[in-house]
Amino acid sequence: MTTKSVINADRIQQAMRSGKAADTESGGLRYVRFVHDFEDIARGTVILHNQAVYGYPAIGRLLALRTGLAKQLSGPFWMEEKIDGFNIRVTRIQSSTIALTRGGYVCPFTSDRLQDLLDTSIFDDQPDLVLCAEVAGPDNPYIESAPPFVSEDVKLFVFDMMRRNSPRFLPQNEKMQLIRRYALPSVEIFGRFEIGDIAPISSILKRLDEEGREGAVFKEDSPRQRRTKHVTGSANLSDIRTSVYSLLDLSPEYFTNRMLRLALFVEEQELADSEDLNRRAGAAFLDGLTGAIRQHRREGRVAHRFRCRFRNPENARQLILYLKQAAGHVQIVPRELKPDGIYWRLEFDRIYPSLNGLLSDWLAGKVVFD
Amino acid sequence: MTTKSVINADRIQQAMRSGKAADTESGGLRYVRFVHDFEDIARGTVILHNQAVYGYPAIGRLLALRTGLAKQLSGPFWMEEKIDGFNIRVTRIQSSTIALTRGGYVCPFTSDRLQDLLDTSIFDDQPDLVLCAEVAGPDNPYIESAPPFVSEDVKLFVFDMMRRNSPRFLPQNEKMQLIRRYALPSVEIFGRFEIGDIAPISSILKRLDEEGREGAVFKEDSPRQRRTKHVTGSANLSDIRTSVYSLLDLSPEYFTNRMLRLALFVEEQELADSEDLNRRAGAAFLDGLTGAIRQHRREGRVAHRFRCRFRNPENARQLILYLKQAAGHVQIVPRELKPDGIYWRLEFDRIYPSLNGLLSDWLAGKVVFD
Repeated sequence: MTTKSVINADRIQQAMRSGKAADTESGGLRYVRFVHDFEDIARGTVILHNQAVYGYPAIGRLLALRTGLAKQLSGPFWMEEKIDGFNIRVTRIQSSTIALTRGGYVCPFTSDRLQDLLDTSIFDDQPDLVLCAEVAGPDNPYIESAPPFVSEDVKLFVFDMMRRNSPRFLPQNEKMQLIRRYALPSVEIFGRFEIGDIAPISSILKRLDEEGREGAVFKEDSPRQRRTKHVTGSANLSDIRTSVYSLLDLSPEYFTNRMLRLALFVEEQELADSEDLNRRAGAAFLDGLTGAIRQHRREGRVAHRFRCRFRNPENARQLILYLKQAAGHVQIVPRELKPDGIYWRLEFDRIYPSLNGLLSDWLAGKVVFD
Repeated sequence: MTTKSVINADRIQQAMRSGKAADTESGGLRYVRFVHDFEDIARGTVILHNQAVYGYPAIGRLLALRTGLAKQLSGPFWMEEKIDGFNIRVTRIQSSTIALTRGGYVCPFTSDRLQDLLDTSIFDDQPDLVLCAEVAGPDNPYIESAPPFVSEDVKLFVFDMMRRNSPRFLPQNEKMQLIRRYALPSVEIFGRFEIGDIAPISSILKRLDEEGREGAVFKEDSPRQRRTKHVTGSANLSDIRTSVYSLLDLSPEYFTNRMLRLALFVEEQELADSEDLNRRAGAAFLDGLTGAIRQHRREGRVAHRFRCRFRNPENARQLILYLKQAAGHVQIVPRELKPDGIYWRLEFDRIYPSLNGLLSDWLAGKVVFD
């Protein structure tokens, strides 16, 4: 068992006074949520019925694999797949099992669909367990991309476990045992490696890249639980491809960083077919942008349509409220909520005012001075 | 003849008090220089020996050709080539002919080489003439790109004429007559068109694009002298290709705007071979970045080498001083100044601290949290 550490009332008050934590109402629950990191408490930590579900900590990204692994880790480490989805933590609160987003909200979509995504009976035996997982697939409400091995709807992939009131992860062997015992869906675990095992690690990454998969997380097999991550060239292209709609709303470094990461992956993995890679890199930008321009000419605006399914239509309404509140100046426009077999299918658009404004001006023949 | 309008001492004082104009010493001359636009006086205007050489005004860029021409111009207009180089104004001050940069400094490089670039005897007959021209070619000290039709050194291309003390351009027919009479090197003049002539204009732009040329300027053939410009897809790719070194120093919109412009050119011109275009777009980013990473591994830093030739080595030293003062945090490092036939060949590096810092961190195995 890992060390327990309850967050006492004084620290919570202190965090709230300094704006790092706040009272939150989400999924019909009232609780305290850490909106920023506070001392050693990660953003997204929630205090619910006097129990802490710790936030999933940020993991540093390696740009150069070879030097990076040696610098960041010591001793043996596990290499696991990093999946292109959204991070959630699943836990049981009284009799109901909920999924918390990275930021510590109850995810109306994942919570609604949990029974489709995993066998929740593990919580009957392990009521204080917290499953850290990625939810990924084309029919998710948050991101435009999906891993190649989820062709419809969404799937859930466990990659870490915690217990309530502890920020530590269960050791790898305990996690693997629980995954086996409860037949939990999990990310692929590639094995246990040493710092010097660059050749097999590289060959796994090359294969992931060829298969259009996102990358890997490296987890030191030691009490300090140090982690780091590295993504494939394909993942950078996928990021670019799926983000052209929000081109003007992302941080300035978004695209240039990804192009640099891609160039570094190509150089380090000595990828041979640069013609093909160049073609894919160009297409990642241009397909989406050309599509956006055509859509704007046709419909007068650029929007991206999202689809996802719910068991309870009330959760679809909750999702829309949640997205609207989180969207900033991106507009969330519900289009349809109707029965689909045993489910309700929600369709909504994300509309990007910055790109729309720019294209409206450009296509109307305005000039820019630069 | 165009209307004369001298800028009186009061207005100059007013501009200087508001920080729009400043005393300047450049090329051994002392004069007043407009560092920003001031009322109808363009940035780069200089007042030298009580004579004004007006700045070359900013020309608005059309993104969508079809709607843009109709919106921006009325009546017939001339279509001329826009060349990928740097803008200068050539004028005779007392007995010497000098080239002023867009910002109003004496360009030590162009001024040194004027006798190689055009027959300056036109100023014997027309002492108050100001030639507006682009200087372009691989051996220039300012920009990394060059038009395909200048394979070595630099060439000068006149595209407009003014007279001292007037901000107006000479009418097109007068300009063309002087170009012919004095056999001045000039940009290609494609002809006089009407707003409806989209088909021939598009076909010229497509040809320019295929030939890797930058684009066109459209000049209304009317007293109001309205102008607008439009660039080819190739020009956007060239911008991206030659700017990867300064990736992190340019404005956030630099790359995304160019990708959008490229996508719009492709869509509007209905370019067919998207495979080839995608390949070129990817290569524009990746060739340079991969090169930068390799150079950093090899030499510990990323730099771009510039070469140019001078008649008088003192002008090369002046150029280095000028570049250093204008470079911001980009470092200018002289490498070599030695005789080369009747010339002196200068080599210097531009070193980009932002990209160097980032690559140093990344290649050393540091992680980033994003």
